[in-house]
Amino acid sequence: MSVKRTTKKLRIYRSLAALGLAAAFAVMASPASAEISAETQYVLNSFSFLMTGALVMWMAAGFAMLESGLVRTKNTASICLKNIALYSIAGLMYYLIGYSLMYIDVGGLIGSFSLLYNPAPAELALINADEATPELVEAAVAGGYASMSDWFFQMVFVATAASIVSGTLAERIKVWPFLIFVVVLTGVIYPIQGAWSWGGGFLAELGFSDFAGSTTVHSVGGWAALTGVIILGARKGKYGPDGRVNPMPGANLPLATLGTFILWLGWFGFNGGSQLALGSALDAAAMAIVFVNTNLAAAAGVVAAMLAAQVLYKKVDLTFALNGALAGLVAITAGPDLQNHLLSIVIGGIGGGLVVISVPLLDKLRIDDVVGAIPVHLVAGIWGTLAVGIFGAGDLLAQIIGIAAVGAFVSLASALVWFALKLTVGIRVSEEVEDLGLDKAELGMEAYPEFGFGTQRL
Amino acid sequence: MSVKRTTKKLRIYRSLAALGLAAAFAVMASPASAEISAETQYVLNSFSFLMTGALVMWMAAGFAMLESGLVRTKNTASICLKNIALYSIAGLMYYLIGYSLMYIDVGGLIGSFSLLYNPAPAELALINADEATPELVEAAVAGGYASMSDWFFQMVFVATAASIVSGTLAERIKVWPFLIFVVVLTGVIYPIQGAWSWGGGFLAELGFSDFAGSTTVHSVGGWAALTGVIILGARKGKYGPDGRVNPMPGANLPLATLGTFILWLGWFGFNGGSQLALGSALDAAAMAIVFVNTNLAAAAGVVAAMLAAQVLYKKVDLTFALNGALAGLVAITAGPDLQNHLLSIVIGGIGGGLVVISVPLLDKLRIDDVVGAIPVHLVAGIWGTLAVGIFGAGDLLAQIIGIAAVGAFVSLASALVWFALKLTVGIRVSEEVEDLGLDKAELGMEAYPEFGFGTQRL
Amino acid sequence: MSVKRTTKKLRIYRSLAALGLAAAFAVMASPASAEISAETQYVLNSFSFLMTGALVMWMAAGFAMLESGLVRTKNTASICLKNIALYSIAGLMYYLIGYSLMYIDVGGLIGSFSLLYNPAPAELALINADEATPELVEAAVAGGYASMSDWFFQMVFVATAASIVSGTLAERIKVWPFLIFVVVLTGVIYPIQGAWSWGGGFLAELGFSDFAGSTTVHSVGGWAALTGVIILGARKGKYGPDGRVNPMPGANLPLATLGTFILWLGWFGFNGGSQLALGSALDAAAMAIVFVNTNLAAAAGVVAAMLAAQVLYKKVDLTFALNGALAGLVAITAGPDLQNHLLSIVIGGIGGGLVVISVPLLDKLRIDDVVGAIPVHLVAGIWGTLAVGIFGAGDLLAQIIGIAAVGAFVSLASALVWFALKLTVGIRVSEEVEDLGLDKAELGMEAYPEFGFGTQRL
Repeated sequence: MSVKRTTKKLRIYRSLAALGLAAAFAVMASPASAEISAETQYVLNSFSFLMTGALVMWMAAGFAMLESGLVRTKNTASICLKNIALYSIAGLMYYLIGYSLMYIDVGGLIGSFSLLYNPAPAELALINADEATPELVEAAVAGGYASMSDWFFQMVFVATAASIVSGTLAERIKVWPFLIFVVVLTGVIYPIQGAWSWGGGFLAELGFSDFAGSTTVHSVGGWAALTGVIILGARKGKYGPDGRVNPMPGANLPLATLGTFILWLGWFGFNGGSQLALGSALDAAAMAIVFVNTNLAAAAGVVAAMLAAQVLYKKVDLTFALNGALAGLVAITAGPDLQNHLLSIVIGGIGGGLVVISVPLLDKLRIDDVVGAIPVHLVAGIWGTLAVGIFGAGDLLAQIIGIAAVGAFVSLASALVWFALKLTVGIRVSEEVEDLGLDKAELGMEAYPEFGFGTQRL
Repeated sequence: MSVKRTTKKLRIYRSLAALGLAAAFAVMASPASAEISAETQYVLNSFSFLMTGALVMWMAAGFAMLESGLVRTKNTASICLKNIALYSIAGLMYYLIGYSLMYIDVGGLIGSFSLLYNPAPAELALINADEATPELVEAAVAGGYASMSDWFFQMVFVATAASIVSGTLAERIKVWPFLIFVVVLTGVIYPIQGAWSWGGGFLAELGFSDFAGSTTVHSVGGWAALTGVIILGARKGKYGPDGRVNPMPGANLPLATLGTFILWLGWFGFNGGSQLALGSALDAAAMAIVFVNTNLAAAAGVVAAMLAAQVLYKKVDLTFALNGALAGLVAITAGPDLQNHLLSIVIGGIGGGLVVISVPLLDKLRIDDVVGAIPVHLVAGIWGTLAVGIFGAGDLLAQIIGIAAVGAFVSLASALVWFALKLTVGIRVSEEVEDLGLDKAELGMEAYPEFGFGTQRL
Repeated sequence: MSVKRTTKKLRIYRSLAALGLAAAFAVMASPASAEISAETQYVLNSFSFLMTGALVMWMAAGFAMLESGLVRTKNTASICLKNIALYSIAGLMYYLIGYSLMYIDVGGLIGSFSLLYNPAPAELALINADEATPELVEAAVAGGYASMSDWFFQMVFVATAASIVSGTLAERIKVWPFLIFVVVLTGVIYPIQGAWSWGGGFLAELGFSDFAGSTTVHSVGGWAALTGVIILGARKGKYGPDGRVNPMPGANLPLATLGTFILWLGWFGFNGGSQLALGSALDAAAMAIVFVNTNLAAAAGVVAAMLAAQVLYKKVDLTFALNGALAGLVAITAGPDLQNHLLSIVIGGIGGGLVVISVPLLDKLRIDDVVGAIPVHLVAGIWGTLAVGIFGAGDLLAQIIGIAAVGAFVSLASALVWFALKLTVGIRVSEEVEDLGLDKAELGMEAYPEFGFGTQRL
């Protein structure tokens, strides 16, 4: 079942409840309701949102570790700070305004501007009642799932989009301006484009299909990162005047490996939870298919990236393998519900191969993406969204329109914010700070004070 | 629904079953039972305990990483050892005696001294029967949840209390005496005070409300740590004779960041699972609210700590951000069921701010808390418990009495144990060992033998 | 309920469904079906497979971190690469051929050679229908659980077996030949022996009992590793000509600690999920017992290993504590369903003690097991499998036959593959590469380029 259809179905249930037509629920419920009660469905749907949402939250740690491992020691504490701060800001902004912009009364282009978001009144009535009467239970259950379980699940997705940006721009962006960008990205930019597809806006009506967000989440982060890196510029010394590309290897590859495994685990929640329901055999069967496709695509991404690196560079390469896994995951995210598992291997494998090709290509364009987030999240995200059209689960033209619309809007909006920041507070640290490292200059601390070239005080 | 009420309700079910009055169950069950069968409720309640309990177990890894990252390299292996050992001891002691002291036949002050704890007989009868007859199922189901799923969930909480202590006392306490303290803390001290509130003892009767343990878990660890650090003394060289505080920065900040993310993830289990049930729409809706409040409070803690550090010290600081997250989490733990999400932002934010104020204050008092566990778990724990009284979900006087009673008991009991250990086996390593590092001296190994100032053998 | 019986029961349901005898399901279902509907059972069974399977997948990260922490810096990136690659290969091979060899139409010795594995037709019919009619739901539900949820759960187990091998052979095996071994191990060797027990083959008929795989998973990895290390030889310089054993300490013990905690968490999925069902009170009660035994055995393993090390070597030792936890976990894996929790403490404790004895014993035999995987997975795996026979839950003779049959087959098959690789592409790096480190030589990168004796470019 596509995200769109499911979202709509659940949303209709909720509206009916709000209108007091709870009785209509029994009729509209799937024929399985004879088998699995509405209250059981409600509990299972909610618990699925909470458990898979927790797995997605865990991806914030994955990005933090991946990026910590791929920057140099002198900027490691800063990237840790940015990651925990952006996850925090994303959650606060999505509560303040984001969720309603994306999901409440979406009229084609944008949702409502109602501030804050709170539990459904029928649920509060049930919780606060002296006794849980059948009427109170029925009214609450008519929502289909616990209102805040859905909010939680949607919230962790917006954080993912923001995480992508921090990696690309690492090692030279100022911490506070970066966080201001995150405020706008998570509170406004992400929710608006999300309203177009998942909120039921014009892309949804066009037939655009993006199960768990190759475009709606990953390419959004990718476009914001790409716009940012063009405006911000490359790290000092990364590109020589003679066209030489200076490697600036990550300081802690086991951490980067851990980050990738965390992301892989979290992706089962990301894609699996995007079934958006667990209240029927259909949902459980579909969710299981999603888990398997997700794993096979990631595995294929690893193997493809390793083989491509071996062929092209005569070396197996750990960072390509890691980014291959992530590219496979991003690529399958638009259509992990496809019923031919072999296809998910193909889609993920191509995603992994694309990374190996895209990384040097970006370097040729002097686009200095510290962790390879643009190849992984933007290139593979576009590929995965197209694949849904190519392999028949969606309409290719709608997919292309969706990719382009989201890309154009996010790039333009991001550019606006980046330029505004550049012209006011500035976005780039001074050359001295870049040499010294952001950790000492902006945070006054070191990530590894006793290791190697640290200050070596004991 | 408060912990107390839920615990009581479930306990009543169980007692009825034990009395053979299983038939009474159908009558007492919530009116929702028409919608969701008793057996389904039993399965969902149990699965919730197991999954959220596994998340809480994961917090042991979080403490281990947080503390590993915040000590110096020469004491890193020791803190790893202490963490895995204390989690192990906590589980064994809670099985041996702790659970029954806390939950079995609590008579105001203390539970029963029955050794070991085993599955409910009705469950074993069901499992061992040749056929699962409706009578056997009904008898087992009357317990409300799998007996050992509840045991598992309660067990992981006691380990959390012990984890708090190891961080504060790191870098100078002897490993075996520390572990003996853990034996008493987890087997006796924690369960006794736990009996007062969650076990249904005198604090519960007074109306003391502590949903998931700001006081019952976190302040317990905090008081034990505070008592310990006063008796143990500061690390050598930490405080100069002129009142100067010498920074002894943590050796691996990405690990500390990872630990914080692990704790944050685990806290969804800690608070969410403390709903203690998932067998109804009410429980699912309430659990979702708990998840959201937990996340918002932590996020607010991060942002508040960052802003406070920027204002007070003109630097953003990673360790303050990390401890801000944890303080936000501790603060919301007493009342994550509040129905106004904005309040959880306030409570968590104040928690984060308190950390930034408390850390230098402790240093002024020459209380050398290596990882900042006292500000996070004790100060924010007290704040969170008071907040439940202040914001109306509980009785403020009962909250104050609860905080004071637990504080007095845990401090006194801990002091007794610390002094007994000091006078017999000793609790502090020699100055030579402290200089050399506990890893080489007590364990005969190094955490990072090839890095920086390690012995540099290859 | 033993794995075997559960597997069979579920398999029978599925066969009946395949034969169109869905109606027979209602009759065969447990008497609890009056209490918990068949569709609810289906959803719960499937969700349990997915959530516990995700925890087992997480063990791949655990092995990666454990092994990263226990090798030297110069081989760290390589071990990371091997771990993510082997997990990927395991998933692909199990999809391609492994699952059908192990579970489809097993005729005593081996399953079917059908390539690829796809969702049950009844599930696809339900998902693709315009309307979920009761007939479609009933047909899908007759399978007992989502077909791909079971596949996912079984798949993550084969990866575990492969992970064990990489640790033992670290620091001198070539990356590609190692991965070719993984292809055969996960696609052929593991599934064939798995068919004998879990697939319902001759060991199952004999009464061999291995709840979650002390033998079927852990000893398989152990035998493959033992065979490999004998053929591969010890690391250069590990054993002096005078019988001296040169310590080659792991480079990053906090990572090894993290890996152990990850494995411990994952093991709740490994053992708990092996109940293979969650659709009844019986299953929930049994799964809770499994969780508790798993935790107690691990805890006992830690404490026993620490005490044994203190007594034998006069030092507490972190790596023994970590491997003690793992040995306790491996030991309980054959029988975590035992109903006397005290016994699980005994079984896990003996497992932990065996590690402390086995490690120096292997060194005496000049078997250079880098991470101690053979003591943990093979020795404790055999012990745990025997324990099921000794403590009455199984037939001791059948247990011995199972251990021996699996050991003989895996050793012979592995030896064949290792020799074939040795004679063709070679399995061992040159002495120069071993000195330089595999990271620089095979991958052209360093795990920690800025730390300690790294190349120290900045």
